[in-house]
Formats: sequence, C-alpha cells, structure tokens
Amino acid sequence: MNARPPHGSARPGGRTARTRVAVLTAAYEALGAESFSALTLDKLAERSGVHVSTIRRRWRTVEGVVVDLLAERSSTLPTPDSGDFRRDLHELAQAIGDFTDALRNRNVIQGLLAAAAHDPRVEEIVRAAFVGRTEQVTRIVRHAIDRGELPADTDAKDVIAALGAPFYYRVLILRGSIDARLVRTSAEAAYHAARAGVFGAGPDGE
Amino acid sequence: MNARPPHGSARPGGRTARTRVAVLTAAYEALGAESFSALTLDKLAERSGVHVSTIRRRWRTVEGVVVDLLAERSSTLPTPDSGDFRRDLHELAQAIGDFTDALRNRNVIQGLLAAAAHDPRVEEIVRAAFVGRTEQVTRIVRHAIDRGELPADTDAKDVIAALGAPFYYRVLILRGSIDARLVRTSAEAAYHAARAGVFGAGPDGE
Repeated sequence: MNARPPHGSARPGGRTARTRVAVLTAAYEALGAESFSALTLDKLAERSGVHVSTIRRRWRTVEGVVVDLLAERSSTLPTPDSGDFRRDLHELAQAIGDFTDALRNRNVIQGLLAAAAHDPRVEEIVRAAFVGRTEQVTRIVRHAIDRGELPADTDAKDVIAALGAPFYYRVLILRGSIDARLVRTSAEAAYHAARAGVFGAGPDGE
Repeated sequence: MNARPPHGSARPGGRTARTRVAVLTAAYEALGAESFSALTLDKLAERSGVHVSTIRRRWRTVEGVVVDLLAERSSTLPTPDSGDFRRDLHELAQAIGDFTDALRNRNVIQGLLAAAAHDPRVEEIVRAAFVGRTEQVTRIVRHAIDRGELPADTDAKDVIAALGAPFYYRVLILRGSIDARLVRTSAEAAYHAARAGVFGAGPDGE
C-alpha cells in the first residue's frame, strides 16, 4: 500500500485520533439534546475543546462531522450469526430497533436527510453509508442460503431492506417510537416472506 | 352543523377555492423542478398570480402550503377493493410506488420531514397526514378478514405499514428509485406475512 493515508487518519491513537474522538463525541452528545438544525461548528468547538478552525479544516461542515459520526455508529451494529436464520433476523431487528429508537440517532438521520434533500454530496454519502451497512449484514442471508434455509436465488439485500424498512417508516413517516411488537413483526414478516421465496429471482428473472 | 367553516373553505368553486387551486398547483409544479428548501412564498406568489399577502394570510408558511398539498395529493390514492386480498395489495403497492417515485412527491415528503425535525407543529401534521391515509386503506385488510382470508386478530394498520415501508426506505434512506420488483416484493411480503399471522395479537396479546 503506497497510497497516502486519507487526510486526518495519520498517527492512530495520536493527536489526530484524539481530536476525532472529541469532536464526534461532542456531536453525539449535542444531538441527544437538540436537533441537527441547531448544531453549529462553533457549538462543536465549544463542547469538544477543539478549535473551530481545526474542525472546519478536517470536516468542512456540520454535515461532514455527522456523516463521519453516522459511519462510526452504524458500523457498531452487530451481524448476528447464531446458526438459525429466524433467530438472526430477530437479533438484527432488535439492534436496528435500538439504533432507530435512540433520539440522537434519529436526529442524525433526520438532519442528514434534510441536508441530502438539497446537497447531492450529502445524498451520496447517506446512500453509501446505508448501502454499505446493508451489504455488511447480508451475511445473515448468505449463511441461511448455505444452510438450505432459503431458496438459492434469494436476493440478500432485499431481505435486509425488508427487515429494516419498518423501523425507518415508524420513526420518520409515522413519527412514532419503536416497541417490542415492531421488532417482532418486522423480523417475522421478513422471515416468512423470504421463506416463501418472495425475494427470489422473480417471474421475469429480475 | 352550526360550526363556522374552517378559514378559507367558504364558497366552494368561488374565489377562495380558485386561489387554493392556483397556489397548490404552483407549489406542485415548483416542487417538480426544485427542492423544497428553494421554495419561498414570493416564488409561489409569482407562479400562482396570487398576492403574497393572501398566501401568507391563509397558509402562513411554505410548510403550510405543502402540508395542504400533501393532504390533497395523498387523498387521491385509491383504496382497491377487487374482492381478492393479494390483488388489492398489489394494486395499492403500485399506487404507493407511483406516488413515491414522482420527484415532486419526494420533494414534498423530504421537505416536510426536514421541517418536522425542528418544528413540532409540522411533525404533528406529517403524522396526522400519514396516519390518516393509513387508516383509510385499512379497509383492504378488514374486507380480507371478513372474507376469511386473514386471521381475525390481524392488525390492519400493521399490514398497511408493512406494505408501504419499503417504498419510503428505498427513496429516503437508500436514495434509489422505485421499480417493478419493489412493487411486487412489497405486496408479496405483506401478503405472506399477513397470511402467516405475523400481524396478529402476538404471543403476549400486544
């Protein structure tokens, strides 16, 4: 690897890494208390103790900080591997439910969607973050196919999207909170649909 | 009914009604060309030929106009009643797919979600609009229960939410467009899950 490390990634554990932790922690805490739209670089500087010019140089905007935060928070979601497809779906549904139910995560998501609506760069970053996350947990589906629990032509990304969609619909569209019933019904709905072959190649080989 | 008619609803077909049509049409057209955040009352006045002070008096803000537009557009969605639950689901999925795929509707929804993130009044209006719409099409599920196609304890709102969620997830979170496969898989997933009793009272009578 002769490629130059991405800006700000030098010296893991050093000053740059500490700066990142301080700023992301400040953003995370701020978004637990107030909305995305109320967040400014000056507030992040005050909360984190990092100079505003340093924050601006590294992340450019509040959106930049929050995209970095989303990437880090999302990657802490587990990819269950219990050996049983149905149980894996329930565990993943619980993790997505916990994630979407946390006020600060909802604030991050809503803020990014608002920003994405008028900034194609943010839109591309949101897409990449969620598509990347979806990609990662498709392992659950691939393992179920390997064990013969699902049809071989099951589209793994479709299954994961079907599992996650009800949580985002609940918090963003219906403006409600997550409950145990939604965790259970989302996992069971994805399970029964996948087992019935709904996410297979389809009548015209789509 | 001795209650005073709501502000602006007097004289159906008269000047007030024509004003409403002109302003909502202007908003609808503007949102097909540009994002919610670029829309102003002055632009709506220019496009509609209605004086800005009239628009401000009646709707107060751009959000007010767009909420009115959403209510009108949403209510034009059909409630299929073919006598067959599976077919009804496919027809409704097609209608939701057409609605969410139209750029101007996506702009309306994204703009409202952005506004809702920092204005509890808009949040309440978004909730009411979608909950109301969900309420209306639950007839599909109730008829299926009456015909014995579904368990009697099926929660109709859960079924409709399961059907609609993948469309909003696709456009808002994955930032993709709607295709025939999503229409088919959403309808089929809701069908198989509902038939399997997923949306019934649940193990602890939820």
